[in-house]
Amino acid sequence: MVTYVQNLQDRICEALEHADTVRFREDQWAWHAGGGGITRVIEEGTLIEKGGVNTSFVHGPLPADIAHHLHVEPMEFAVCGISLVLHPQSPRVPTVHMNLRCFEMADGRGWFGGGVDLTPYYPYPDDFRYFHRTLRDACEGAIPGSYAGYKKRCDEYFTIRHREEMRGIGGIFFDHLSAVDPSHFRLAQAVGDTFLDLYLPIAATRRGEVYSEQDKQFQLIRRGRYLEFNLIYDQGTLFGLKTNARIESIFISFPPVMKFVYDWKPEAGTPQAEMCRYYQPREWAAADGAGRSQNA
Amino acid sequence: MVTYVQNLQDRICEALEHADTVRFREDQWAWHAGGGGITRVIEEGTLIEKGGVNTSFVHGPLPADIAHHLHVEPMEFAVCGISLVLHPQSPRVPTVHMNLRCFEMADGRGWFGGGVDLTPYYPYPDDFRYFHRTLRDACEGAIPGSYAGYKKRCDEYFTIRHREEMRGIGGIFFDHLSAVDPSHFRLAQAVGDTFLDLYLPIAATRRGEVYSEQDKQFQLIRRGRYLEFNLIYDQGTLFGLKTNARIESIFISFPPVMKFVYDWKPEAGTPQAEMCRYYQPREWAAADGAGRSQNA
Repeated sequence: MVTYVQNLQDRICEALEHADTVRFREDQWAWHAGGGGITRVIEEGTLIEKGGVNTSFVHGPLPADIAHHLHVEPMEFAVCGISLVLHPQSPRVPTVHMNLRCFEMADGRGWFGGGVDLTPYYPYPDDFRYFHRTLRDACEGAIPGSYAGYKKRCDEYFTIRHREEMRGIGGIFFDHLSAVDPSHFRLAQAVGDTFLDLYLPIAATRRGEVYSEQDKQFQLIRRGRYLEFNLIYDQGTLFGLKTNARIESIFISFPPVMKFVYDWKPEAGTPQAEMCRYYQPREWAAADGAGRSQNA
Repeated sequence: MVTYVQNLQDRICEALEHADTVRFREDQWAWHAGGGGITRVIEEGTLIEKGGVNTSFVHGPLPADIAHHLHVEPMEFAVCGISLVLHPQSPRVPTVHMNLRCFEMADGRGWFGGGVDLTPYYPYPDDFRYFHRTLRDACEGAIPGSYAGYKKRCDEYFTIRHREEMRGIGGIFFDHLSAVDPSHFRLAQAVGDTFLDLYLPIAATRRGEVYSEQDKQFQLIRRGRYLEFNLIYDQGTLFGLKTNARIESIFISFPPVMKFVYDWKPEAGTPQAEMCRYYQPREWAAADGAGRSQNA
């Protein structure tokens, strides 16, 4: 897994540099108890306004409150993973997030977890179908029948509960998948390997679209919601704060610029109003391609 | 207290409208169990970019997790208060926050809590001394000898622990002051009554200063830290989320626009570098007026 994620980090950064006008900056850091990470950051590109592609491999004694949370005795642990968030300049290009990790404990138990999710700011249902179908194919290739459950977990996880809306249009999310089962490592690899095919075609199609001031405002407001989610609910962010991981590497997921407007609501009939309806669970990968609401 | 805070809300909003070019918008809301609040919001003024002056008086059964947190049996409670955050347009004018509240339980116990703190973005030590001395005089007038302790509590409370820095330059913070003791209501009133004298002279002096692009950038970055604090540590925000209070009224404290720049640090010798040194506890009200570091 350590080799896999570092190789994946190289592949993704290389492809993104090829697609953009700026290069990644790299910072290596050490964790206080053992191991460390490689943080790569891209800022002010023509495609990506701010993005981070991080890998880490840390090990040491499990922090007491995490042991308590997991209902285990204090012992040594190791966690290895890749975490990525890309915030594009254009509101027509969606923000994307991926995380793949393997958590292992000294008693021999271990689990894979991770996922990918998309946060668009403009209603392109074709893109959302493409995104979900590509993810479905990756999941089903590794573990037949697995997509539906991971998709549902993702809808639930990336919900801003105090607003009763999702952060974006979901994707997949999996956790506590036993590391003993080789299909789970295959799943993590299938997801990692599909990432560039999942995102770059959408970015390539949409980055040239001319957008309005209204589109940009909406992106800034939704980025505010993104941050709300990350600071209040995201387990990765909270885990990072608890383990005293490097703050700048955790917070690289934060949008570069964002806005909070009191009691903001989209105007009826606008693309923004349409987009807001999509921040609810929908069957984007369904055969009829309607992307219809699950409540319909 | 209910009459006092509503009257104070009127006084403060009237004075701010007089100082600015826009008027407050008012939203009244009901809490699900009983009572409600009056949210007043000002946006896009020439002085204030976004500000909220809220009062609320809510009552009903104490939410289970709050009862657990307070180590009390489930019972009825009531809380009445005023909460205010002003984010000015100019980086030369500081953000200010005030909160005054009285929390009462069905068993007859009750407590006052609250405080005022300042978040400046430009180093004007004279203003910081004025702010702290005015607060000190208000506290000492109500309860002799009280300022030093409340000042220390404020420095501790408004610390962004994962960054080991304060949100701003502090102020005062008090909590769990028994409602049985009339001096505690006097303290809350003294603080409320001094608010306009505390803030408006600073705003009036600094709003006309010509500022640089660098000053504005720094304001946007520090507003990001402000939000980090509010979403991760602020008990008022977390209490609001737990009690299902009105989201838009809780989040009115969020800055209107903000920025997160990876691994940002001020350049040596700039006003921003000087300002960053002031985000640590200092004796601003001390007789020698040096505003020297408490570690010096």
